[in-house]
Amino acid sequence: MASEMQAQAGAQFRLPQVGIGTDIHAFSADESRELWLGGLKWEDSGPGLEGHSDADVVAHAACNALFSAAGLGDLGQHFGTGRPEWSGASGVTLLTEAARIVRAAGFEIGNIAVQVVGLRPKIGKRRDEAQKVLSAAAGAPVALSAATSDGLGFTGRGEGLAAIATALVVRV
Amino acid sequence: MASEMQAQAGAQFRLPQVGIGTDIHAFSADESRELWLGGLKWEDSGPGLEGHSDADVVAHAACNALFSAAGLGDLGQHFGTGRPEWSGASGVTLLTEAARIVRAAGFEIGNIAVQVVGLRPKIGKRRDEAQKVLSAAAGAPVALSAATSDGLGFTGRGEGLAAIATALVVRV
Amino acid sequence: MASEMQAQAGAQFRLPQVGIGTDIHAFSADESRELWLGGLKWEDSGPGLEGHSDADVVAHAACNALFSAAGLGDLGQHFGTGRPEWSGASGVTLLTEAARIVRAAGFEIGNIAVQVVGLRPKIGKRRDEAQKVLSAAAGAPVALSAATSDGLGFTGRGEGLAAIATALVVRV
Repeated sequence: MASEMQAQAGAQFRLPQVGIGTDIHAFSADESRELWLGGLKWEDSGPGLEGHSDADVVAHAACNALFSAAGLGDLGQHFGTGRPEWSGASGVTLLTEAARIVRAAGFEIGNIAVQVVGLRPKIGKRRDEAQKVLSAAAGAPVALSAATSDGLGFTGRGEGLAAIATALVVRV
Repeated sequence: MASEMQAQAGAQFRLPQVGIGTDIHAFSADESRELWLGGLKWEDSGPGLEGHSDADVVAHAACNALFSAAGLGDLGQHFGTGRPEWSGASGVTLLTEAARIVRAAGFEIGNIAVQVVGLRPKIGKRRDEAQKVLSAAAGAPVALSAATSDGLGFTGRGEGLAAIATALVVRV
Repeated sequence: MASEMQAQAGAQFRLPQVGIGTDIHAFSADESRELWLGGLKWEDSGPGLEGHSDADVVAHAACNALFSAAGLGDLGQHFGTGRPEWSGASGVTLLTEAARIVRAAGFEIGNIAVQVVGLRPKIGKRRDEAQKVLSAAAGAPVALSAATSDGLGFTGRGEGLAAIATALVVRV
């Protein structure tokens, strides 16, 4: 009994692993470019972000943090130019696939947390909605928060958005 | 006995959650502006940071990381313009309240770690003092470290300070 | 037996601690300057980074994250100008020593994860090689990933490299 419990405990006691991920994209000069962020389309929040696919820096940073925690590389390796089948895929699609890859490699995903830095859109009003979409994609809680940079740097000048994320996974 | 232990273990085995938080403020052009950082007032270290309240980027990044780990939004949501009762509150006051909110939502706070990036003040000499003040506010260990950016970006040009933080919490 | 297990479990159940670390260095104008990153020398990837020692921002950010997680200060405190015996030491040497210090203070190192942001070198092709060197130095898994900043900021303009890292440790 004790050894059984110890075996169970052994599995559960395994130290989790943490990861870090970032993503940055410039705002488009094209007024008609759609703004996608945190898995949502933002109307009336100004032009979208430049980049392949939807340039959703929140979803991309989350993918990077997940891969980082599991020691499985990064967005570029899994979905970059060497993988044309993912060209144009949405951030939510990529996050869904990143979570699948991490689980297939033998990890349980604890949580992901992302902070986006920049002037727009205003995250607060749609935070819950974005968190639901992202958490459904990852199959684990994804927290979304926002900050500004007091007019400093490219985020402060409104040239683009930066997102930074962390994730916790555990080998099962 | 075994099942009792398992039950206890069950509570303790819960996977912790990690979060990420940032804050950035510009240095003031007003030479008389006080510099507050890491819960301390820094004399003879040049003018302070612009912003509502004390603009303590270390304490603010710590708040953001705590809220992020617990999935409870961010500084702006809890203490922003929609909450005038917190207008002008010190960073330490906000960190104390952030920790209270996170605990009230059912979390234990493991630790918080903050790194500040910029030219001044020199953190090293007052690190222990700052860590004591911040840890007392959070009711959990807060680590404070510093780095520079080799003359690059707004932190390198001495235009402002950036702080980045992570936190670990666990649902109890 | 049960109490023995509980004692063991008690040790293993201890909440881990997370940390955060950054490092930034400018690319050298000196074409002959060697580029060291992630513990590797990169040939044919352009000039190296300015700085004392090898300016390996990946290894330095990893050190900062480790010290941060353990609440033991930062790179500057342990290896800065006040410690001339470390002047000119390689990033890998510093990471080895940082891990030794953290263990000597009573911590087990779970993992370290680093993301480097900038234009060059291309990490992907030598990721495994770098991870092996860094993991051997730390005596724990070190994950290395890369991202770009879409032409924005000093990393986007190719002026330098930024690295950001997180680490998980547990007191034993």
